[in-house]
Amino acid sequence: MPKPATARGEATLRRLLDAAEAEFGERGFHAASVSSITARAKVSQGTFYLYFPSKEAIFGAVVRAIGHALRKHMALAVAQRSDRMQAQRAGIEAFLDFVQRHPGLYRIVQEAQFVDEVAFREYYERLAAGYARSLARDAAAGALAPGDAEVRAWAIMGLGHFLGLRYCLWRQRLPEPEVLDAAMAFIGHGIAPHESGPP
Amino acid sequence: MPKPATARGEATLRRLLDAAEAEFGERGFHAASVSSITARAKVSQGTFYLYFPSKEAIFGAVVRAIGHALRKHMALAVAQRSDRMQAQRAGIEAFLDFVQRHPGLYRIVQEAQFVDEVAFREYYERLAAGYARSLARDAAAGALAPGDAEVRAWAIMGLGHFLGLRYCLWRQRLPEPEVLDAAMAFIGHGIAPHESGPP
Repeated sequence: MPKPATARGEATLRRLLDAAEAEFGERGFHAASVSSITARAKVSQGTFYLYFPSKEAIFGAVVRAIGHALRKHMALAVAQRSDRMQAQRAGIEAFLDFVQRHPGLYRIVQEAQFVDEVAFREYYERLAAGYARSLARDAAAGALAPGDAEVRAWAIMGLGHFLGLRYCLWRQRLPEPEVLDAAMAFIGHGIAPHESGPP
Repeated sequence: MPKPATARGEATLRRLLDAAEAEFGERGFHAASVSSITARAKVSQGTFYLYFPSKEAIFGAVVRAIGHALRKHMALAVAQRSDRMQAQRAGIEAFLDFVQRHPGLYRIVQEAQFVDEVAFREYYERLAAGYARSLARDAAAGALAPGDAEVRAWAIMGLGHFLGLRYCLWRQRLPEPEVLDAAMAFIGHGIAPHESGPP
């Protein structure tokens, strides 16, 4: 994917990526076509091929663009909170909000494991790396209990993914605050009986 | 899928399902074919169509069979432990062990959301329902802290799924005990700083 040299080129690239996200999200990779993407984006097929050599290439670019936008959206939400458990909640809320505004997100990222596995792994590895860095920093500062930041990052990503599936995607709305409360109680304090205390 | 009336019919059905699991796991739904499945199972195509009307039909049956086998495998592991936090660990270990022995599991179940979404939702909803029942029972007995059993079930399923992806599937081996220790510390006690105590 070339870096467009002009603002106009940048806008065309953005239109193509948005159109491809809608097309792949609604129809899936196999049924999607370059001609539908260009029709949605209102650009010619000739223009499409200036930016991407193939349907596969724009699919990988969409996965990377979604990953980038999601990481930015979550990082912004998390950075605004000084209480680090509140920051965790803000990060999960930002993720679920992103899911609502990108209805094709799950379908596209999950389909990536069949279409472009490198883009799929990179999507999760970059998300996890940033998350683990932030968790490690907070634990080192005493704002979280000590613990393995990488395992925690993958655990919380999985938790967010499955809560998003169950409480957002399958119901097409945001979860009730009580669901978030219950998720945060789990992330904060776990499920061991209280008398056993921390390890 | 008809219930075979004879032991021989049962064995043929089992061979077809095992062959289809291998075929879908290795090649994916689109590239898989009924003729490859019957060749792997060493049955004729005529016999195949006595059991399943189509490739789609056996795909849904494979997803249901994997779900059934996984629930049974995990329930057995969990039931053997009297300490309920040890039972949680045994459940996750059983899941990861199952992933190792069914290398096509992730691919098949994740592809189901595009091929047979009913089977995909049913797979997770049945797993979650059994898990939530067990968590609710343990919390009511005081063996776990009180909390929303359904949110906990989906959270722990998500955690298991992502740890399985990161530490098993992408590395093709079981995680080190330290990874399980870290995951269990997270599930047991969460990440909130200790001085804040339980809510």
